[in-house]
Amino acid sequence: MRQPPFPDVQVLAFDVFGTVVDWHGSIVREVQALYPQVDANAFALAWRDGYQPAMQRVRSGELGWTRIDELHRRILDGLLPHFGLAHLSEADRQHLNRVWHRLEPWPDTLEGLQRLKRHYTITTLSNGNIGLLTNMAKRAGLPWDCILSAEVFRAYKPDPATYLGVARTFDLAPEQVMLVAAHQDDLDAARACGLRTAYIERPLEFGAGRVKDVSGDAGNDVHAGSLVGLAERLETGG
Amino acid sequence: MRQPPFPDVQVLAFDVFGTVVDWHGSIVREVQALYPQVDANAFALAWRDGYQPAMQRVRSGELGWTRIDELHRRILDGLLPHFGLAHLSEADRQHLNRVWHRLEPWPDTLEGLQRLKRHYTITTLSNGNIGLLTNMAKRAGLPWDCILSAEVFRAYKPDPATYLGVARTFDLAPEQVMLVAAHQDDLDAARACGLRTAYIERPLEFGAGRVKDVSGDAGNDVHAGSLVGLAERLETGG
Repeated sequence: MRQPPFPDVQVLAFDVFGTVVDWHGSIVREVQALYPQVDANAFALAWRDGYQPAMQRVRSGELGWTRIDELHRRILDGLLPHFGLAHLSEADRQHLNRVWHRLEPWPDTLEGLQRLKRHYTITTLSNGNIGLLTNMAKRAGLPWDCILSAEVFRAYKPDPATYLGVARTFDLAPEQVMLVAAHQDDLDAARACGLRTAYIERPLEFGAGRVKDVSGDAGNDVHAGSLVGLAERLETGG
Repeated sequence: MRQPPFPDVQVLAFDVFGTVVDWHGSIVREVQALYPQVDANAFALAWRDGYQPAMQRVRSGELGWTRIDELHRRILDGLLPHFGLAHLSEADRQHLNRVWHRLEPWPDTLEGLQRLKRHYTITTLSNGNIGLLTNMAKRAGLPWDCILSAEVFRAYKPDPATYLGVARTFDLAPEQVMLVAAHQDDLDAARACGLRTAYIERPLEFGAGRVKDVSGDAGNDVHAGSLVGLAERLETGG
């Protein structure tokens, strides 16, 4: 067996929405089941489109620290009238908003995480809040060693406090931590802080109607088609 | 099967040092192996005796926010000359200080946590830092759903911010969270915040030479001899 390619790396920190779980497919399935009259694909995309602008209001200081559950809810409330769902009760809205706690993993996720967990400490590093990530993991069987979140560092990615916060949490140098993500901007920000980076191809993150370019950047330390592919690369250096 | 006794409780939050793991026995075994000339029992007790005063310096504001790893190290450095170990190198001190990451579970811990995890979200609520708790869990196989720590809330127990922080993290009312601990003062502070409380008997927490009174307080919601005993009580109401 060859030497693993990154012998110094001890912690793998995972982006979650899109990288580990299929937010688009999960939301489409729930919305189709609950509200068959709605264009579930458009609904899922519109909800996610509100995500970065909502976090930007926190990053800029316009909003004080606000968790993703609350940001998702604000976006949802704004969205419902446009999809003929303005009549939804408070209980219905709360239930729908918690769909983000019920996102399903990609088919390779469980095997990939189980294999990676044998050799590394695996933690989330998500903008999702701690309760959301814990509920999701418990339901889906995601075997995290630790739940780290923007909520712990009170800053949203790509703030350096999040990437460097992982290293500090485990008393490691930045290059001993690898960020695993399906989003190049997340990886770029992590690399600027000195972390290692692994790009995961998720061409269907936005559904079959908006296939994503997954070429990634040549500057990533690893480029893999799935989390199982990442495990293979890190185990053998292949 | 009878109705579980606390149908509203969704999250069990665990004190860790003494409740889940045997700090005294673990430190005694490591110190005996590394430094056989030292009175390991006295050494373990002296190290732990420095714990509350060190946290008190943080609580009082005399020290800014400082993690337990760093507090353990300061206490250790003060202790070594009294045990004939003033000559220890920096690497030896770092290794010894990390014994707190290598504490062993009590014999009932793994079975108890596995059973409790089937029905509840199980999280740490420890004054230990996140990295310490994660390393300990990975080594010992503690199956936490979430790692919560004083470090997340930037306050040490018994600050109400810690107990109420667990409830807020999971968007629950305080009475939907139960603190599990072998220390009555911890449970008293949690109950004052509205949490449910479970007392666990750990008569040998300080070793066989300083057997602990484990009568607990009648105000605790549950009194159990072990984590398996707690699982039995919560599963059946027995």
